[in-house]
Amino acid sequence: MSIEERLRSNGIELPHPAAPIANYVPCVRSGSLLVVSGQLCLGPDGKLAPAHTGKLGVSVSLADGQAAARLCAVNVLAQVRALLGSLEPIKRCIRLGGFINSTADYGSLPQVMNGASDLMVLVLGDPGRHARTTIGVAQLPLDAAVEVEAMFEVG
Amino acid sequence: MSIEERLRSNGIELPHPAAPIANYVPCVRSGSLLVVSGQLCLGPDGKLAPAHTGKLGVSVSLADGQAAARLCAVNVLAQVRALLGSLEPIKRCIRLGGFINSTADYGSLPQVMNGASDLMVLVLGDPGRHARTTIGVAQLPLDAAVEVEAMFEVG
Amino acid sequence: MSIEERLRSNGIELPHPAAPIANYVPCVRSGSLLVVSGQLCLGPDGKLAPAHTGKLGVSVSLADGQAAARLCAVNVLAQVRALLGSLEPIKRCIRLGGFINSTADYGSLPQVMNGASDLMVLVLGDPGRHARTTIGVAQLPLDAAVEVEAMFEVG
Repeated sequence: MSIEERLRSNGIELPHPAAPIANYVPCVRSGSLLVVSGQLCLGPDGKLAPAHTGKLGVSVSLADGQAAARLCAVNVLAQVRALLGSLEPIKRCIRLGGFINSTADYGSLPQVMNGASDLMVLVLGDPGRHARTTIGVAQLPLDAAVEVEAMFEVG
Repeated sequence: MSIEERLRSNGIELPHPAAPIANYVPCVRSGSLLVVSGQLCLGPDGKLAPAHTGKLGVSVSLADGQAAARLCAVNVLAQVRALLGSLEPIKRCIRLGGFINSTADYGSLPQVMNGASDLMVLVLGDPGRHARTTIGVAQLPLDAAVEVEAMFEVG
Repeated sequence: MSIEERLRSNGIELPHPAAPIANYVPCVRSGSLLVVSGQLCLGPDGKLAPAHTGKLGVSVSLADGQAAARLCAVNVLAQVRALLGSLEPIKRCIRLGGFINSTADYGSLPQVMNGASDLMVLVLGDPGRHARTTIGVAQLPLDAAVEVEAMFEVG
């Protein structure tokens, strides 16, 4: 199955990708490396839902945090497709960086980030298995619950 | 215009770059990739000004935060020039990572980081347009207001 | 002296590397780049010691934080050896990212991270000298005191 077929068979629709909210670009390719800017958990309408706004450990539940992380990963893939015209040039997801807007004592950071990791493996299959760093941060742009950045190998 | 000419025409002077404050190096080149250590918002005198010390949302204003982020970017370029002897080998700024020392409810993280992004584009032109991740962190070395790390493609 | 000899002569034993605590992999190689997932300060028994759990500035002392950072670096090397079968293919440590679980006013972040940097230089010698970014974060997985991610050049 191609990556695009896997998207369809899983009912995943990539949104029109968000424009950067400041003076930078969504992705930069350098040789076979593709670096994707941190993506927030914006929904398909380009907006941050109330359920995906705020902190894990305060107003955002684990399930909503996981859904937010999944949205970040969907938005990462939307940016890649906007740059390359397709997801097929992806050889490998090298790394995801996961930033969770959380309290200082939140206990389920990896479980939240799994929402992004699981989506990447669901869409890309084995080449979607990536190195990962997950941290709980004091604050994120727009008070988003999750932000995910990525590095891919592309051919 | 060369990069060095753009520096001069914009009145930007790169400082004598700061020595790492611990057991590491400012930049590492690996093939065409150049990775620059997180740079703090030290001034041209190598010191952290009171206006650029502390947290956004407490003691540091948005304007001071933007100036701090710009200083970080200037210091990134100073490190690159110290390693390569010139900025001309820069083909592209691939990525900036922006770390803002902020309260848990600070609302203008991207605007602060624009101070760094705008400087990079001002100096490098179109090849200065980079992928970017901005997060608000609990604390930074020396209680600096901003820290910026970078990755470049060099030729 | 080979890297493995330097390990032995310094009495450093690499543990059986920890399995990722979620749906990702410990390391990804892409060409000459090797990216290592954020490693927590798990001990040789694969467990997080109470002394290496919690925040710098609250319950974790500077000395314990440094020991935790050193453990993270040991675990990074254990993951590299598990993937490559040996540490000898390492040409260079390009970058360490250091995430310190800290209060909002903790004052010794770089000193904590030195525990990781010093170990890397001790084991790899001059090629162990790396670019580095150190930040204080709100929270880490398992409430670990320190997490370290890495990028190497391998041959």
